[in-house]
This record gives sequence, C-alpha cells and structure tokens, in this order.
Amino acid sequence: MAKAITLLESTRADHRAQGDELLTQLLPHTGKALRLGISGVPGVGKSTFIETLGLYLIGQGLRVAVLAIDPSSSVSGGSILGDKTRMEHLSVREEAYIRPSPSSGTLGGVAEKTREAMLVCEAAGYDVVIVETVGVGQSETTVWGMTDMFVLLQLPNAGDELQAIKKGVMEIADLVVINKADIDPNAATRAQAQITSSLRLLGLHGSAGHERHDASFWQPKVLQISALAGTGVAEFWAAVTEFNTLQTANGRRAARRQQQNLAWMWQRIEAGLKHAFHQNALVQARLPALLADVSAGRIAASTAARNLLSAHAGQALTATQSIANT
Amino acid sequence: MAKAITLLESTRADHRAQGDELLTQLLPHTGKALRLGISGVPGVGKSTFIETLGLYLIGQGLRVAVLAIDPSSSVSGGSILGDKTRMEHLSVREEAYIRPSPSSGTLGGVAEKTREAMLVCEAAGYDVVIVETVGVGQSETTVWGMTDMFVLLQLPNAGDELQAIKKGVMEIADLVVINKADIDPNAATRAQAQITSSLRLLGLHGSAGHERHDASFWQPKVLQISALAGTGVAEFWAAVTEFNTLQTANGRRAARRQQQNLAWMWQRIEAGLKHAFHQNALVQARLPALLADVSAGRIAASTAARNLLSAHAGQALTATQSIANT
Repeated sequence: MAKAITLLESTRADHRAQGDELLTQLLPHTGKALRLGISGVPGVGKSTFIETLGLYLIGQGLRVAVLAIDPSSSVSGGSILGDKTRMEHLSVREEAYIRPSPSSGTLGGVAEKTREAMLVCEAAGYDVVIVETVGVGQSETTVWGMTDMFVLLQLPNAGDELQAIKKGVMEIADLVVINKADIDPNAATRAQAQITSSLRLLGLHGSAGHERHDASFWQPKVLQISALAGTGVAEFWAAVTEFNTLQTANGRRAARRQQQNLAWMWQRIEAGLKHAFHQNALVQARLPALLADVSAGRIAASTAARNLLSAHAGQALTATQSIANT
Repeated sequence: MAKAITLLESTRADHRAQGDELLTQLLPHTGKALRLGISGVPGVGKSTFIETLGLYLIGQGLRVAVLAIDPSSSVSGGSILGDKTRMEHLSVREEAYIRPSPSSGTLGGVAEKTREAMLVCEAAGYDVVIVETVGVGQSETTVWGMTDMFVLLQLPNAGDELQAIKKGVMEIADLVVINKADIDPNAATRAQAQITSSLRLLGLHGSAGHERHDASFWQPKVLQISALAGTGVAEFWAAVTEFNTLQTANGRRAARRQQQNLAWMWQRIEAGLKHAFHQNALVQARLPALLADVSAGRIAASTAARNLLSAHAGQALTATQSIANT
C-alpha cells in the first residue's frame, strides 16, 4: 500500500501513467469507507484525539487510516503533521495506517495526492479514513471538499474568543469538538453553549460562500471531550455514526461525493492550465515588464492579459511548428 | 466616446487590436475620476437615486458618467439596467453620459467591457463614474473590484430581515443608503440602527472572504435618503467626499486601484485559458464521456483531468502540425 501511494506521489511522467492505470483499477473497490475530516489549530490536541479515536475504533473491530494535508509542507519541504511518532500507540497497530502529508507542491497538489492515497486506503479495506489538517489558509475547505463529514476541534476557551475562529470554517463544520475539556470544565461548558448558539445563528442566516450540508436533516452538534482522559469518545463516535447513517440514507452522501469528484476534476484542470501558462517561455519572458506596466497604469489590464494569452498560444504554435518542420 | 466604447465592446479580432491600441493611448489620461459602485435589489430605487445624485453633481459643476453591469444580460441578451429612458432628466443633460450594460458574454466579459468603458469616460474628462448593478450572483463583488467606493442601497424594511441580505455584500459596503426613507420614517430609523450595529459587528469580527477596506480609517456609515423627495443627497455626497479624501490621502486608493488592475489581469488570463480549453475540439469530444465516468466513479477525477489536459495540449499540437504541413 505504501508503494502504491509512493507511486501516486511521484511526479515522473512514466510513474504518473502507471499511477493513473492503478487508480482506474482500484476505483471499483473504493468508496466504502467513512471519510472523516478533522481540523484544528496547533495545540488543540489533534494527534492525541486521533490516536484515542483510532484505538477506540480498532476496539470496535474497525480498521483506520490517517492521512494529513499540511499546507505548510509546500513551503518548508517537511511536514509538521502526520509524524508517526506522534501517535506511537496507534502507529504500531496493524489495523491502523498512518501517512504523513505529501511534502511538496501547492495545496492543490498536496490535496490531490492525499485524495489518491485515500482511494488506495479504501481499496485496501480500511473502514474509516481520517484526513487531518491544521487551520491554515484554505486547507480546511480543501479537507471539507474530500470528506463525508467535517469536524472542528476547539479548545475550552475558544468560546470566549469566537471572533478568532475563521467564520468560513465554523460554517462548514458538521460537528465541533471541545477538546481538553477536563482542563477547565466550566470554560468548556461555556464554550459549548456559545458555539452551539453561534452555529444555530449561522444555520438561520445561511452561508455566504460555502454550500453547507442540508440543515433539514442535521443541526451541527457541539461535544465535550478529553482525549487524554479518554472521555467523550464513544459519544463522539455515536454522533459521527448518526450523521453518516442519515446522510447515507437520504442520498446526500452520494451526491456530496459526486459533487466533490467533479469539483476536483475542474480544479485540477484549472491548475494544469495555469501551470502550462506559467511554464511557457514566452510568457515568462514577457510577464515581468507587463506586470510593471499594469501596476504603473501604462497598459490596461485586459490588454496585458490578451498580450500574454496570445504569447502563450503563439509559443505553443512556434514550438510545434519547429517540431513539425524537423 | 460612444464610438470608442462600441469599438471596445466588439469581439471582432481586428476591432480588438484597434481597441487595445486605443486603450493604451487613453490610459495616461485616465484615473482622475471618482469611481463609485452602487448596488441594490430591483425596486430599491437605483435609477431615481442615481438620477437625483447625477443632477445634484451637475449642479456642483461636475460631469457624471453612469455605466451598468447586468449579469442577467448574458442570459436574456438584453439589459434590464441602463435603459436611458429610466433617467430622462439626467440623460438629456450634456454633462451626463449614460451607457447601458454590455448585453452579452459572461459576467467577466461584461465587467471587462464596463471597465474599459470607464477608462474611456475618464479620458473624456468625466469627474464621477458611477457603476451600478443589481444584486445578482457575484455582480456586487465585481463592481466592488473596479470602483473606489461601494454603496449598497436598502429599503426601509430591510433592517427587519437582515438575514435576507447576502452577508458578503454587507461586508464590502463602504456606505449603506436607506432609500425611500420618506415612505416609513420609523422603519427607516430602525433599519439605520440595525444595519449600523451589524456593520460594527462585521468590522469587529473581520471578514471571511473579502479583503475589506482598512477599518482604521473608515467605519462604514448608514444614511437615510429620499431620492424622490431629494432629501439626504447633499449628506450622501459629503460622506462620499470624506471617504474619498481620506482614502486618497493615505494612499489606499492608489493601492486599491493597483490591486484591482492586477487582479483584473489574472482574471482575464484565467478566463482566456478556460475559454481556449473549452473551445478545443478534442476536449469537446472527450468531455461528455469523462464527466459521466467521473460522476459514476469509473475514473478518478485527477485521471480525467490529466486526460483532458493532454488532449488539450495534443490537439493544439495536431492542429498546428496540420497547418505547418500544408
């Protein structure tokens, strides 16, 4: 399985072709797992929570895969998530598979490799695939766009500083977990009440950007947990199961996955088109001067865009003509 | 001027080349106008408001251009905005220029033509360029992205149904005008208080998607106006002038325009790349089956994307080879 994922993570063209062949063969055997997205800021206790959850699920006879999307890995070249040593009890269990975040590329590229790894895990028979991320940039939305359910971890004092929570993230949460509730039970209970009322308000007022789940069948819940003490995990899993059962029965899960697949395809096409544009030698040659001209108001933005687009098309033409003429 | 704008609206390639030449020549003479975006739902009284404002500005010795972005025109082929007969008193004044929305194309295309028309108006010496739009889809964000200041018109009863206002729109408003305040003065005063407190809340909590103006120098105002009775117009213009003076003095207006120009260039490049992709014959041939395969889970989204991207690149190659070989 690790070999398959490594093959899919390779950027070599021949590996990519083999990878696509492999994916197409695996695809009929995928889709049976519950795909669970988990997000939270550093320090919220994601690793401990996922380890505790993972061991609980193994106790229930389930196999668990843990994948990670770390948007910072594209900058640092190394992943701050998914380090196996973080989950030492879980990582030694053969019912568990833990894979760190792909360590290079744009967020879109990292997400693509993680999506493909998820398919491999499903084909290998894992029952639950957890995709974790830190709350940086668009990474939560990315994880939300590839999972069946999105869980946001919060600290007990988060309710006091609701404004610090990125609004869009609260809006896509199907479940909010107040972790480390044992540290300050009063604060945790206050946070639970505050977040519950915020979520109700968001539900009423609708959402600006995101297409939220259908409020008619699910009102996001807020739970208290202490991953370290191991309390609240059974209740958490009961809530996940309830949501999953409802969403599967009413057909929303299948619809959500289909939407995600189509959105994923168009995202990758867009990224590929932009990549080809930026790789174009003539575009690269002209871009700096045009950016300066547009910034300084010497050339209209639309004129500059047309100039670059025809450079891009023309360069392809010229390169191909020279090939055709040899 | 109308001829220049018509030339810029043409999609013929030779017109387009002449248009780009014209734009580049005009550009040094642009940028002096105040660019004012005005939005509101149908029935809020945009035409009467703009006509009243326009006549007031002419009275102050200013020349006014009114442009429109109507996203529905791309569907209907005809514009519901910008009809000159709506502003019969303003349209007969030679200090005023009124241009209806370009009547075809995507929202991006319509916006591009309006942006270019704005430059023509500025070069022709208009002091204030008003860009109006109805609150449909992304049109407010589009107008916000090409103006110095964004004004949202509301009806007196809007405060009672704040949830009906698209959240993202409230967040980008620099000024909210409660129009037709004379119809129900009590409701207008209630709405003013409610919207003022909502805006303060939004200012505190920050914004999810949009990059708002710098709250350190401007707290969005809420004004009452009766365009029909002509009350409140001088106060409105005083607020606009105050904002414009502050924003110009602290350098935010120049920065905002530069950002807008660069964003516009990248938007047009993206749109051009996508257009070329969708026009590609091989892509068109393969797309329906691949969409069906991705929807049905027979092929991975990333595999389908790579398939189409190489079809796109390959088709350009094939077409060019056949040209090169003739």
